[in-house]
Amino acid sequence: MDAAFAHLEKHKDQFLELLMEYLRIPSVSAQRVHHEDARRAAAFAKTQLEAAGFETTLFEGAGLPTVYGSRLENESLPTLLVYGHYDVQPPEPFELWETQPFEPAIVDGEVRARGCADDKGPSLALVLAARCWVEATGSLPVNLKFILEGEEEVGGQVVEQFLEARKDDLAADALVIADTSGFARGVPALCYGLRGLVAVEIKVNGPSHDLHSGTYGGTVANPATALARLVASLHDDDGRIAVDGFYDGVDEVEEEERDRLDRLPFDKEAYLAETGSPKLFGEKGFTTLERKGARPTCEVNGIFGGYQGEGSKTIVPSSAGCKLTCRLVPSQEPQHVQDALVRHLERACPPGVTLEVTRGPMAPAVYSDPETDWAKRARSALETAFGQAPALTREGGSIPIVNLFAQKLGVQPLLLGTYTPGERAHSPNERYPVEDFYAGIRTGIALFSGQ
Amino acid sequence: MDAAFAHLEKHKDQFLELLMEYLRIPSVSAQRVHHEDARRAAAFAKTQLEAAGFETTLFEGAGLPTVYGSRLENESLPTLLVYGHYDVQPPEPFELWETQPFEPAIVDGEVRARGCADDKGPSLALVLAARCWVEATGSLPVNLKFILEGEEEVGGQVVEQFLEARKDDLAADALVIADTSGFARGVPALCYGLRGLVAVEIKVNGPSHDLHSGTYGGTVANPATALARLVASLHDDDGRIAVDGFYDGVDEVEEEERDRLDRLPFDKEAYLAETGSPKLFGEKGFTTLERKGARPTCEVNGIFGGYQGEGSKTIVPSSAGCKLTCRLVPSQEPQHVQDALVRHLERACPPGVTLEVTRGPMAPAVYSDPETDWAKRARSALETAFGQAPALTREGGSIPIVNLFAQKLGVQPLLLGTYTPGERAHSPNERYPVEDFYAGIRTGIALFSGQ
Repeated sequence: MDAAFAHLEKHKDQFLELLMEYLRIPSVSAQRVHHEDARRAAAFAKTQLEAAGFETTLFEGAGLPTVYGSRLENESLPTLLVYGHYDVQPPEPFELWETQPFEPAIVDGEVRARGCADDKGPSLALVLAARCWVEATGSLPVNLKFILEGEEEVGGQVVEQFLEARKDDLAADALVIADTSGFARGVPALCYGLRGLVAVEIKVNGPSHDLHSGTYGGTVANPATALARLVASLHDDDGRIAVDGFYDGVDEVEEEERDRLDRLPFDKEAYLAETGSPKLFGEKGFTTLERKGARPTCEVNGIFGGYQGEGSKTIVPSSAGCKLTCRLVPSQEPQHVQDALVRHLERACPPGVTLEVTRGPMAPAVYSDPETDWAKRARSALETAFGQAPALTREGGSIPIVNLFAQKLGVQPLLLGTYTPGERAHSPNERYPVEDFYAGIRTGIALFSGQ
Repeated sequence: MDAAFAHLEKHKDQFLELLMEYLRIPSVSAQRVHHEDARRAAAFAKTQLEAAGFETTLFEGAGLPTVYGSRLENESLPTLLVYGHYDVQPPEPFELWETQPFEPAIVDGEVRARGCADDKGPSLALVLAARCWVEATGSLPVNLKFILEGEEEVGGQVVEQFLEARKDDLAADALVIADTSGFARGVPALCYGLRGLVAVEIKVNGPSHDLHSGTYGGTVANPATALARLVASLHDDDGRIAVDGFYDGVDEVEEEERDRLDRLPFDKEAYLAETGSPKLFGEKGFTTLERKGARPTCEVNGIFGGYQGEGSKTIVPSSAGCKLTCRLVPSQEPQHVQDALVRHLERACPPGVTLEVTRGPMAPAVYSDPETDWAKRARSALETAFGQAPALTREGGSIPIVNLFAQKLGVQPLLLGTYTPGERAHSPNERYPVEDFYAGIRTGIALFSGQ
C-alpha cells in the first residue's frame, strides 16, 4: 500500500490535470445538444480504466452508454464492484456562476466546475486508486469491476439494461459508490442509510371556472382554502405526520444510533447558514441529524392555484393543487405509505370540492449495516485516507440506483462520503476541494488493499 | 308617461340599432391600442345625450375623459344623477367567443358583444329613456345629470377628478346606477347592499434558496406547509372566519331581511350550474343568499410556492405566498378588519419561518336603505318596466365608485338591476337580452317620472 500511496504523491499534478480534462467535457445528459459531449466523456472514462489495465466495453442501449471495465486478478481475491457516473447536471443558470462551469478553475484550493463533486471527481479518484496499485506494484490486491454510467442525472434506463444483460458477470462482495457527501471539511462519512420516496400530486377542484370572489365568494368552497386545510392536516403542531398508518413499521431511533449521531460534531450555526433558514424546525423529540436521515418526512414541493401575478384579482380559483413527496426510512413499505396518504387525503378533504390524487414514483429506503466486515473495511480506508474516522451518517436523499443494485445483484452498498458538504451539486459554483480528490484516491487505494 | 312609453314602442328598432353601433366601438380602457376607440365611444355617448337635449361637456384628466350631460328643467323638480361607463373589459381570450366581441349579433333574443350588459346596454337605456320623455313630451319631469366615465374597468382617476372639480354642480336627490344584475330572467332587482373589501398579500419565507427535500427535508420548516397551516387557520370547519375581531360590529341578519331573502325564488340547481361548483358551501347557519351579500368572507384569490411544472422536483421551497381578499358588510370597519387579520396571521404563523404581510386596498361596504322614498320609487319603476316586483338583493361585490359618490356628494345610490344574471360580464360571450334593453328604457322612463 505504501508503494501505491508513494505513486500517488509523485503523480498528484498529473492526476489533477486528468480531472480538469474530464471536467472540460460538458457531459450534460439532460440536454440533447450535449449528448456528443457525453459520449466523449464516456470515451475518456473508458481510456482511464484502460490506463489502469482494465478490460473495457461500452454498453449501448436506448440512451447514453454505460462504461464497464474489469480487472480480475485472481479468483481467490475478494471482488468489489464500483459504481459512478460520467454525466453531469445542467449548468444553468449561467449568470450565477463565478467561473465558467466547463472551464474548471481552482479557487481557494477548491476545484470549481460542473460535475467536479457530482460525480467526476470522486469516481475518477477510484479509477486512479486502481491505477496507483497497478503502476506501483504491477497488480491489484482485489478483483475490480467498474460501472460508469451516463444517465444518472436523468434516471435513464441503460444502466438497468446493462445490469440485466450482464448480471452473471457482476457478482461482487460489495458495491462501492462515492456519490454522497462527507460530514464536514476533512471529516469523511460512511453513509449507511438512504431514505426511500413516495410522491403524490393533489388537485382540488371547485367551480368550473374562476369566479368573481365578490359575487360568489362565501357561497361555494374555495379550492385554495380546501387545499390549505388538506395540507395542514398532514402534520400536527409538533411537526409529526398526522396520517394514520404512516409510521407503521417505523422503528424508534435506537439508543446506540442516537448516541452515535449525538457524538457527531453537528454545527447548528453552519447548518443554518448552509440552508439560509431562520431556524431549525422538525418532528418533536428528535435531533436534526435524526430528522435528517432516521425519520420519515412529508414535504410540499410546490403549491399553486388561482391568481399569481402582480396586484390583486378578486377570484375564487376554480382549482388548486400541490406536489408532495415523502421520504421513507427502512421498514416502511412504500406502497403501504402511499395508500395511507391517499386514504388520509380522501378522508380529510373538506366539503364542497372534489379531490384528484395522482400517485407518483416510489422507492424503498436503503439500510446498509455499518458493522459488516466490508463496512468496517470501508471505514478503516476512509480513516487511513483522511486521518479522521468517518462519521456514520444517514442521508435524507434517495439514490434509486442503490435499490436497483440491491434488487438485481443482492450486494451490500458502501457509500463513501469523500467530498466536503456544501459542494453545491446541482447548483451554480459546484466545488470540490483538491485535497478531497487526493483523499478520495487514498481511500480507494486503502479500500482496494482488501484489508 | 304613456306618451314616453309609446315613443319607445315606435322607436325600438332604431334604439336597438344605436346600441349595436355603440357596441361596435372597441372601447377597451385597459388596452392603450384601443384608447382612440374609447374616445370615439365617449363622443358617441355625448352625441346620444345631446340627442336628448342635454348640455354636454367632455372632462379631460390624466386618462380617458368623463362625459357629462345635464338637462335642468326646473328648480322645483327633483334631480337625479345617473352614473354609467362607456369603457369595456378586454375581450380576450378571443378563441372562446362564439361570435366576434365587437361585431354585435343577436342570438336567441340576446345581444352578444363585449360590453352589452356591462355597461353600454343598461346605461344607454337610461339616456334613451330621457330621450323618449323629451321627444314625446318636449321636456323631462325631473332634472337629470349624467356622468358616463371611461375608466370604470381600470379604476382610473379621471371621474374622481371630475367629481372634485364639479362637486357643486352635481347635487342631486339620488344617484342612479344601472350596473348590477337583475335577479332572474324577467325579474329585476334593486340592490341595497354592496360588500366592502380588504386585501392582504402573505409571503412566508424559509430557506434562502430551494433546498433538496431529501437532504434537508424534516430539519427546517417548509414554507408551503407553514402557509397552508396559516390559511387553514382563517376558517373553522363550519366555514366561519376564525380571526379574532373579524366579526366585530357585524349584525346578525335580521328576521325581516331573512324572510325577504327567503321569499326570493332562489334556484339552487341553476346557481350550481352557473358556478360549476360540485356543491354549495359556506358559513354554517346562513342561506346562500345571506352568505352572498349579508355576511363577510375571507377568500384566497391565489396561492403559490415551489415547483409548479410537470413531474416532480424534490425541493423544500424557499418561500410560499397567497393573496387574500375579505368582503365586508356594513358596520365593519375596513381598517379594523385588516388590523385583525394581520394580527391573526402574525399570531398563527408556525415556527421556523418568517412572515411578510403586505396590506392591500380597502373599501367600506355600502348599504342603501330600500325603504326610502327614492328607493321605493326605483322599486316601483322596475315593477312598472318588468311587470314584476324587483327582488331586493345584496350583491357580494364591491363598486368603489359608489363609495366615492357617497363620500363626495352624500347622495343615496339606487342600484337598478335590469339585466338577466349569467351575463358573463368580463368573460367571453357576454350577453344581454334585447327585452332587458327595452325594459331598461322603460325603467328609466318610469323612474324619471318622479312618481
